[in-house]
Amino acid sequence: MDLVREDETLDDLQLNGINIIQKKKAFRFGIDAVLLANYANVKNNHTVIDLCTGTGIVPFIIAGKTKAKKVLGIEIQDEFVEMAHRSVEINNLQDRVDFMCADLKDTAVLKKLERADVVTVNPPYKLMNAGIKNATDKLTIARHEVLCNLENVIAASRILLKDNGRLYMVHRPERLADIFCLMRKYKIEPKRVQFVHPSAKKAPNIVLVEGQRDGGSFLKFEEPLYVYDDKGCYTKEIDEIYGRG
Amino acid sequence: MDLVREDETLDDLQLNGINIIQKKKAFRFGIDAVLLANYANVKNNHTVIDLCTGTGIVPFIIAGKTKAKKVLGIEIQDEFVEMAHRSVEINNLQDRVDFMCADLKDTAVLKKLERADVVTVNPPYKLMNAGIKNATDKLTIARHEVLCNLENVIAASRILLKDNGRLYMVHRPERLADIFCLMRKYKIEPKRVQFVHPSAKKAPNIVLVEGQRDGGSFLKFEEPLYVYDDKGCYTKEIDEIYGRG
Repeated sequence: MDLVREDETLDDLQLNGINIIQKKKAFRFGIDAVLLANYANVKNNHTVIDLCTGTGIVPFIIAGKTKAKKVLGIEIQDEFVEMAHRSVEINNLQDRVDFMCADLKDTAVLKKLERADVVTVNPPYKLMNAGIKNATDKLTIARHEVLCNLENVIAASRILLKDNGRLYMVHRPERLADIFCLMRKYKIEPKRVQFVHPSAKKAPNIVLVEGQRDGGSFLKFEEPLYVYDDKGCYTKEIDEIYGRG
Repeated sequence: MDLVREDETLDDLQLNGINIIQKKKAFRFGIDAVLLANYANVKNNHTVIDLCTGTGIVPFIIAGKTKAKKVLGIEIQDEFVEMAHRSVEINNLQDRVDFMCADLKDTAVLKKLERADVVTVNPPYKLMNAGIKNATDKLTIARHEVLCNLENVIAASRILLKDNGRLYMVHRPERLADIFCLMRKYKIEPKRVQFVHPSAKKAPNIVLVEGQRDGGSFLKFEEPLYVYDDKGCYTKEIDEIYGRG
């Protein structure tokens, strides 16, 4: 059986020869996932769980960039999990990368998993009520808080993380008050924030947040990341993240 | 009696001829107060209360820049209140600007005041335990959470604001999780955030936050403000704020 189907593409991540299967027309990975995978501080032999993993872009980048012992992606939509499994085969990463189809609200399932050093998540950004036309549509589920909301994601991370383990999240800045307050509710202390701006003159439109399970309170803001420079070209920092440095 | 004493200076704010009395050697106003006074959206006939007002820099800038009906500064250190009263006389602002010596933790006193459209505050930034040598020193009280902490300031704002009134605060980014969580605890919803960076390549070191008493949740991040440009000169935006535009 061919591992890549007619409505799919096999895309080279430019990372140790790793490729990922994506749909030709829909749900192709974006800059958010790339930034998140780059932001997470994954050390040698760390175990990583990626929530809302989709077709697995964050686990595959982390597998390519780091010496993580094991990366597990969890996704509620089985069609994406099936695609991610085929990407594992194509890359011969069976010993380091795995995926499971599960609902992160199902705490009984989460509690059976081995706890992780690192949890990453690129959750649905938009509130449930923000202009949803079809709540069963795959893209709607990936983008809106239909099947899980921010609180579900942070509650799941609390369960999945080892003591002092780190949560890395990418989200929209307008949800930052929600993120901080929910992290504290679940005793994951916000430790580090980086804003991403389209350019130096524009407001940030992406935020990266690191939290630590039961961490002490000290929050560090990092140098901002700009996607484009004054001339409309990608900045050096973005080129480096995409491996074009 | 001379209104300005030997150990004091009279400084021109470059705003409609307004001057402020400061000590020659200590507790001279900084950029934080100027940014805060500029950030606050004070409309014609608004009433304003400035907490932790010191020698009154924020009330005097607001009086000079806006058509606020009344600006009241509250300060716990009587020496600063006495200086601020003399600045009122010098500027002939008795009908619009006033100061009182009070402890913002004294809720009985706060509840007797007329509620304000706008509360501004440039609170002590540093935690109580962060390297304090002399807890009765005036500068220590102004800079460290000796006599009031962030929660006291936000609780006082809740009491002092009219329904839907706005709180404007300047603080350090590393306290932003505390600010958001305490604002929500006291039902002052974070609505707008602006970061101030020494320059575009550096992490933010000042944050301006607007909250609304009983406001709905929508948080807007604004374009960042940079103090210096690539050449080490003040940016146009900073020059404008300082009236040098």
